[in-house]
Amino acid sequence: MPTIVQKFGGTSVSDPVRIRRAAQRVADARGSGFEVVVVVSAMGKTTDELIALAEQVSTSPDRRELDMLMATGEQASVALLAMALRELGCPASSLTGGQAGLRTDGVHGRARITRIECGRLERLISRGEIPVVAGFQGTSDEGEITTLGRGGSDTTAVAIAAALRVAEAGGYCEIFTDVDGVYTADPRLVRSAVKLPRISYEEMLELAMLGAGVLHARAVLFGEKYGVPIHVRHSQKPDHGTMISRESPNMEELAVVGCALKDELGRVSIRQIRNVVGLQGRLFTALAHANIVVDDIMQTEQGSAAMIAFTVEHADLAESKQIVAKTLQELGEGEMSVEVGLAKVSVVGVGMKSHAGVASRMFRALGEAGVAIHNITTSEIKISCIIDAANGQRGLEAVHSTFGLGLGANATMAMQTDSTRL
Amino acid sequence: MPTIVQKFGGTSVSDPVRIRRAAQRVADARGSGFEVVVVVSAMGKTTDELIALAEQVSTSPDRRELDMLMATGEQASVALLAMALRELGCPASSLTGGQAGLRTDGVHGRARITRIECGRLERLISRGEIPVVAGFQGTSDEGEITTLGRGGSDTTAVAIAAALRVAEAGGYCEIFTDVDGVYTADPRLVRSAVKLPRISYEEMLELAMLGAGVLHARAVLFGEKYGVPIHVRHSQKPDHGTMISRESPNMEELAVVGCALKDELGRVSIRQIRNVVGLQGRLFTALAHANIVVDDIMQTEQGSAAMIAFTVEHADLAESKQIVAKTLQELGEGEMSVEVGLAKVSVVGVGMKSHAGVASRMFRALGEAGVAIHNITTSEIKISCIIDAANGQRGLEAVHSTFGLGLGANATMAMQTDSTRL
Repeated sequence: MPTIVQKFGGTSVSDPVRIRRAAQRVADARGSGFEVVVVVSAMGKTTDELIALAEQVSTSPDRRELDMLMATGEQASVALLAMALRELGCPASSLTGGQAGLRTDGVHGRARITRIECGRLERLISRGEIPVVAGFQGTSDEGEITTLGRGGSDTTAVAIAAALRVAEAGGYCEIFTDVDGVYTADPRLVRSAVKLPRISYEEMLELAMLGAGVLHARAVLFGEKYGVPIHVRHSQKPDHGTMISRESPNMEELAVVGCALKDELGRVSIRQIRNVVGLQGRLFTALAHANIVVDDIMQTEQGSAAMIAFTVEHADLAESKQIVAKTLQELGEGEMSVEVGLAKVSVVGVGMKSHAGVASRMFRALGEAGVAIHNITTSEIKISCIIDAANGQRGLEAVHSTFGLGLGANATMAMQTDSTRL
Repeated sequence: MPTIVQKFGGTSVSDPVRIRRAAQRVADARGSGFEVVVVVSAMGKTTDELIALAEQVSTSPDRRELDMLMATGEQASVALLAMALRELGCPASSLTGGQAGLRTDGVHGRARITRIECGRLERLISRGEIPVVAGFQGTSDEGEITTLGRGGSDTTAVAIAAALRVAEAGGYCEIFTDVDGVYTADPRLVRSAVKLPRISYEEMLELAMLGAGVLHARAVLFGEKYGVPIHVRHSQKPDHGTMISRESPNMEELAVVGCALKDELGRVSIRQIRNVVGLQGRLFTALAHANIVVDDIMQTEQGSAAMIAFTVEHADLAESKQIVAKTLQELGEGEMSVEVGLAKVSVVGVGMKSHAGVASRMFRALGEAGVAIHNITTSEIKISCIIDAANGQRGLEAVHSTFGLGLGANATMAMQTDSTRL
């Protein structure tokens, strides 16, 4: 029997009614002939409440102690979900991350999974029991409770699916969340956006990085590395969501599968600086030490002078400006300017590797919509343009439309491919 | 340096303010030259809230899953208390019951401690760190999370003090609770009641059984078995509370150290039944299977007929009546009568072993106060009289007064001893 690993996020188990509903979905999957392993996040706002408590007893809570505290959130939800499953007549046993064999390094708050000792999971499955595993947590080799940081529960689910080799027997990982799946663009911004029935790991990864909050990049990377198909779907609806898997032949026909908009970006630009060896390292190490997430970095050169620009979220702009100013002062050269109110529109698709003209088509669409392009960055399967935030939605709609993304299902997408050859 | 094990109950850590206050008490003890190990219960009403959640997902929650759920309560409080200690500059590490080495049998919901593997606790102490241990929980040899049932956190504290042999170096166990200590009678009922600076394990055990909710009998038994002195004191006051320890010579001088009242009792009396072998076993096994806690059992005989009576709390009376009626029907003989509105007044003291006349003095005091005695039961260090609940407080005051319990501290108590020789 194939095994699916079903993961329920916090909103899917936020109260007893939803916990019982989640249990019913597990029971249904079992009834359809699957072995099931369940991974659960902490209920609703539990994690936030625990952090608030910690901040009331300590100005800077110790990371090890925070992990002890956080881990209680998932431990409570797995116990409750296992009870609800038993109530439905499904034998189920809850497991902490440690009990499920999830071993991590000792970096509290953002531990990395080192291995999964599957013995206990396999014994439960072979006895016909449903293991209900606490997501987001594990134990170090010293027996310390650790948490995996952002995207941790998704990563737990995909990692367990990988360790159990579920794909070999036709199994996969199923992520229940509060959205329907992955769309060609954010449906709140582009009304004609449609849900993608399938997408490749690489594309999903780019979209996740671009702010599509459906699934954390870390879980996607794990899925890609170990070849675990990931089905993202709505926890309260029966519909098929989006299946994330390796590139398939028909996928390759598509030049662009989706586009994304990230706004509230600011840009720091540095001019009049000699492009000496080590300059960039010095600049961006200082920013990294301050935990500033740099969005895109662009550099051009004019003679021996460099022109470096990078984008950051508005919230990080003031601190970025300070750090760059300090670094330039130490270097004794360079001029800095700062802009706010920028946005980034991007198109993503593995097909663009083999299709020419995607970039030019994107630029033309933006131009025809009257949108000025300030910067451009590209990867193998992504093209991003920095534009004014005021043009954000218009730009996204123009790009979405030019690649025919709103037309619907896969069948129509194959058709578009020809017209993207410019 | 002597080690004390400090235990904080749920009300002592019910919110961040109280958690910080508890941390300050730990820091103070450390500042006075003690090594400290801390044991903590779940915050305030957490356990009740978790049970309520469980009942919303399952009609009869699985015991193993309930333990997984419950254990999160103490795990959260130890993490928070450890953070609060670090905030005060005290190095501290929280530990789950399992991490602290507390091993139990596998009986979920009411596990028994089988041993404590002290290695980790000792390593932390020798490094100058304060271990903050989750009370009420442990792990079985299979790595399953178990809980100890009623009185579990007190028992954890005393058991750890025993395992660390703290008494050998002048250490002890300190139970912080929401009362000042053990009184000669319940101060809400007897205004002249005074706090006992010291009491023996046996006396505390009898008082605990008689409903003095200060400390659970199970923890007292553990203390007695391993010779751990237990200091019961108020968590929000600096005053000395009551030290529970082995009988000391001056303790033996006291005939009676305290008295207690338990009301809302009902009595089931059975007459006209042949006293055949196995009768009592059959009767009380049926009650035990229904989880009815029988208070006192009294039996007298007249020829071949037995007269058996027992008391139970009012809440259990209806079911007790049903069970006894069914048993008598099966036996085909016996008459049952049931009374409500009874109370039990008791005096306790190891001194009565060697002092005559305690009983007669108690009976006379009750008689002079106009209190009729319905039943009498005694143990080596306790005398109990069943009386009408309406006479409860009057009876308690009369007994408290006749043994001079309200006079005050130990010094005056030694003086009373002579007058109790009747």
